[in-house]
Amino acid sequence: MNSAMTSRIKLSVAYVLRAARTACGTLPASVHLQHNSYGRQDCLKTGTKHDCSAMDKGRGLIFRQLFEATSSTYTYLLGDLESREAVLIDPVLETVDRDVKLTEELSLSLKVAVNTHCHADHITGTGILKKKLFGCKSAISLHSGAMADIQLSEGDCITFGKHSLVVRETPGHTDGCVTLVLNDQSMAFTGDALLIRGCGRTDFQQGCPQKLYQSVHKKIFTLPGHCLIYPAHDYKGQMVSTVDEERKFNPRLTKTQEEFVEIMDNLNLPKPGKIDIAVPANLVCGLHEV
Amino acid sequence: MNSAMTSRIKLSVAYVLRAARTACGTLPASVHLQHNSYGRQDCLKTGTKHDCSAMDKGRGLIFRQLFEATSSTYTYLLGDLESREAVLIDPVLETVDRDVKLTEELSLSLKVAVNTHCHADHITGTGILKKKLFGCKSAISLHSGAMADIQLSEGDCITFGKHSLVVRETPGHTDGCVTLVLNDQSMAFTGDALLIRGCGRTDFQQGCPQKLYQSVHKKIFTLPGHCLIYPAHDYKGQMVSTVDEERKFNPRLTKTQEEFVEIMDNLNLPKPGKIDIAVPANLVCGLHEV
Repeated sequence: MNSAMTSRIKLSVAYVLRAARTACGTLPASVHLQHNSYGRQDCLKTGTKHDCSAMDKGRGLIFRQLFEATSSTYTYLLGDLESREAVLIDPVLETVDRDVKLTEELSLSLKVAVNTHCHADHITGTGILKKKLFGCKSAISLHSGAMADIQLSEGDCITFGKHSLVVRETPGHTDGCVTLVLNDQSMAFTGDALLIRGCGRTDFQQGCPQKLYQSVHKKIFTLPGHCLIYPAHDYKGQMVSTVDEERKFNPRLTKTQEEFVEIMDNLNLPKPGKIDIAVPANLVCGLHEV
Repeated sequence: MNSAMTSRIKLSVAYVLRAARTACGTLPASVHLQHNSYGRQDCLKTGTKHDCSAMDKGRGLIFRQLFEATSSTYTYLLGDLESREAVLIDPVLETVDRDVKLTEELSLSLKVAVNTHCHADHITGTGILKKKLFGCKSAISLHSGAMADIQLSEGDCITFGKHSLVVRETPGHTDGCVTLVLNDQSMAFTGDALLIRGCGRTDFQQGCPQKLYQSVHKKIFTLPGHCLIYPAHDYKGQMVSTVDEERKFNPRLTKTQEEFVEIMDNLNLPKPGKIDIAVPANLVCGLHEV
């Protein structure tokens, strides 16, 4: 790592700490970090209770799944039908123009562009999105070590209109992986923690198969069986699964932890082609020159 | 065309006529061709009235969108949650094993594999599906000239459990193009007639831009604005649109018919790579050797 990179990362860490302290204060009125208790399913919203469970399932939600073919990445756009506030999950640099156009055509106002983790296979679109869409904030896990306007931790909520995404920390692929669960628990955006009939690799970027196994079993498989699983990638043309299906048919995660670790330690995958440019870029929100 | 092909097509036509006459009688009890009047939204089911409009929107429907990357084709699996009866739209030969596995994992019983038209860019999976899944029938438009167990015409319904797909003939890309509309009009599978911000080409296989323009405006744009549009292909990672969006933003179909014809007549697209093998194969339900 050269000295320019080191000082950039130091700046990034300083920014992270500052952002973490002031995150709620700097966000638009209706986009807050909120803390959620899964058992009770209630959210604290700037000090007052907000009953997330009273929401009708899926009602008033605009939802779009989008695909970037080179890295086989799914990007997700979620918008509130009434307020038009929206969140974009895992945008890719190369498809930012498509996503901006769609957001505008749907008359949505993008409040947050969030990454489920610091990707190694593509450069995030969050940096460019912030430049193109005024008011859009970037978000990523506090544990990712990456720079962003909002640093997410377990239980945080990203609200958009009457909907919200609740953060579950699901490390194992990387330390900073999160799963974003729609507050009615009808959808979970699992990043690279859980893929359809698969899971993210654990052989670089703090990868740890034991952690990943625990994350999936404790944080994702505990969601309702009908909860839809939307991963960060798929390589076989599959677009969605459910908790129930993955509990039954995931060829890796239906094994014991010992067997799972054995499988993951012997995948012998090639190094991702873009890792050397994607990770440094993603640590600074996709903007090399910031 | 060689003589073997000619006699095969003659056989195919004979089979088509026979199938058309006996279609209802040869289908499993709950999978019938039904005639639907859009205005009244009622279906005739073996002679008795069956009120399709009374169904709750989306309730009890298992739905999966799948993708085949080489031809950028979407395949759609729709199943009835209760009876487990299912329909597969536009299966691709190369992804049949994936689709069979998913159908089985979801405990669905595939009743009909239907093509929206005789594709020129890939070989249909319907022939192989019939061999792999006992009881599965193939279906395609009567006007496609292709062989199948069920020959579809305007207003026909393909029922699966309490749901059904209603046929709207939408020629223009080919003479045998149909749009399949879920009976609550919440989803339309438009084949190559209407793509997301685009449409199928009209320069081969009986292509006619005037017909296509009329089909889209009279048969698809007359659906409710919120009706989801699921096309046969997309090349930009977009997966779904709505009638309302396409009415507003489709760069070709928002033009006058004259302008549309001018655009379509000057696309100068290359010939599809697989047309010489795909069309003859698809005329016999994807099975060259039948």
